[in-house]
Amino acid sequence: MTEERRRPGRDDYVAWDTATLRWADIDVYGHMNNARYFELIDTVVNDHLAAAVGTDIRALPAIGVVAEVSCRYFREVTYPGRLDLGIALERLGTSSVVYRVGIFQGDPAGDGATAAAEGRFVHVYVDNTDAARPVTPIPDVVRAALEPLVR
Amino acid sequence: MTEERRRPGRDDYVAWDTATLRWADIDVYGHMNNARYFELIDTVVNDHLAAAVGTDIRALPAIGVVAEVSCRYFREVTYPGRLDLGIALERLGTSSVVYRVGIFQGDPAGDGATAAAEGRFVHVYVDNTDAARPVTPIPDVVRAALEPLVR
Amino acid sequence: MTEERRRPGRDDYVAWDTATLRWADIDVYGHMNNARYFELIDTVVNDHLAAAVGTDIRALPAIGVVAEVSCRYFREVTYPGRLDLGIALERLGTSSVVYRVGIFQGDPAGDGATAAAEGRFVHVYVDNTDAARPVTPIPDVVRAALEPLVR
Amino acid sequence: MTEERRRPGRDDYVAWDTATLRWADIDVYGHMNNARYFELIDTVVNDHLAAAVGTDIRALPAIGVVAEVSCRYFREVTYPGRLDLGIALERLGTSSVVYRVGIFQGDPAGDGATAAAEGRFVHVYVDNTDAARPVTPIPDVVRAALEPLVR
Repeated sequence: MTEERRRPGRDDYVAWDTATLRWADIDVYGHMNNARYFELIDTVVNDHLAAAVGTDIRALPAIGVVAEVSCRYFREVTYPGRLDLGIALERLGTSSVVYRVGIFQGDPAGDGATAAAEGRFVHVYVDNTDAARPVTPIPDVVRAALEPLVR
Repeated sequence: MTEERRRPGRDDYVAWDTATLRWADIDVYGHMNNARYFELIDTVVNDHLAAAVGTDIRALPAIGVVAEVSCRYFREVTYPGRLDLGIALERLGTSSVVYRVGIFQGDPAGDGATAAAEGRFVHVYVDNTDAARPVTPIPDVVRAALEPLVR
Repeated sequence: MTEERRRPGRDDYVAWDTATLRWADIDVYGHMNNARYFELIDTVVNDHLAAAVGTDIRALPAIGVVAEVSCRYFREVTYPGRLDLGIALERLGTSSVVYRVGIFQGDPAGDGATAAAEGRFVHVYVDNTDAARPVTPIPDVVRAALEPLVR
Repeated sequence: MTEERRRPGRDDYVAWDTATLRWADIDVYGHMNNARYFELIDTVVNDHLAAAVGTDIRALPAIGVVAEVSCRYFREVTYPGRLDLGIALERLGTSSVVYRVGIFQGDPAGDGATAAAEGRFVHVYVDNTDAARPVTPIPDVVRAALEPLVR
């Protein structure tokens, strides 16, 4: 279970982005649907990677494929509203990267000091020039862009 | 067909909101999926209505149900990025409201001067206290909130 | 307004598909969100086109781009459940195609005899080998595949 | 990392459902977007629970809230197509339930024998009659409905 784990604070993340919520994010209970959080996690990882690398990632011979994602939910977010999304690396391996994305809402000195949810996103790099897509080392240009995110 | 209709400019709208795009908005062609535009149209109508009325709309005896929506697409929007969403009323009838939502991207003095797409959203008010939900006049509190949006 | 238009029956469509609903389709009012209908309309058009043409549509020199879509809502669909999706052509022009998609739920001899909603979907063909993407005639292979859908 | 874990087979699940894919599920790489898998996981859990309990779950004094979800991806699913969704319980605790959902595509005697992905979904029961929503035991009617899913 999740209870023993500490609820992350804003200091646990390195880079930040913002997302606007949508009416369609909200389910019949008035809560943000659990699947929709992954649309935000996905976006912050891809946007940060694209901006940090500064070239078209999709044109590199090695690409990151999603091997595993997860999200822990600590408290409800409210609609309408905006979310602050913090990003940091849990691990930068030879061929894989594990991102953590903190989802915050509200005053950083109040309710918004600790995360409403935390996502975890695992990319494994594969050789996109080989149809069998064997696992391959993370390209140097990607590694250099990601190192500042390690905490 | 749509060709004869004028592509709207920013002056055609009264109130504004902003939305962030998501990776999942983009389809296999690299374009924003046509269905996802309606998530933004829906959001700007509901958010503006909630803010303008200033009370819980869902608790009113008459509620707006969606009778018809449409969207015309003029040019692609690019990801990652933000969109500016303009809203105005095409018609404020006895029991129905027709909203227009302009979707803009980019410099208001350049590419972003004219809409990338325009949505149209029709709400019909029904009596929510009657299970048969007969059509009913728009509540005064909603009408007063919407009048400033008429162009 | 939409009131005067006839609510379509199953005889108004030529080809059929089925879709399963998802929990995330349902909004805070317990209704299917208006944007999610377009995910189904989009799917039935693309799937039918791909199956009828029988080749990779995306590899053709002329591709269909979405110029306009709309949906009229007649009655709520219920969750959980399945939907029957009927498709027919309203118009097969030189460069454009107008599809109608009827969304039905329930017993064809009862509640499901008439549409719960009807979508309209406009494709305009453009020359994908030219960066300016000028409007171009519908490819013969596509036209032949679509003619049986005209009503 | 995920490599050491066994890829589940169809025998690892107890109950089954089917889902149709949508054009909007597919991202710019031609793959099903990682967030969209959770729309299916969510649906199979809620549908099975509603059917097994046979009463309106939302009217019970104790309701399940989503505490954590995850998904491991083993191979791509293809569009258009259908998915088979298997469900089983990993754990039926005092106040929490851990579901596993296997996502399969294709011939059960061929490619579809092992899972393309596996989701994990954690519900924690809370007392919905108390605004503080304290953790509470799983209602007996829910427990009885879930016991046949334990493997």
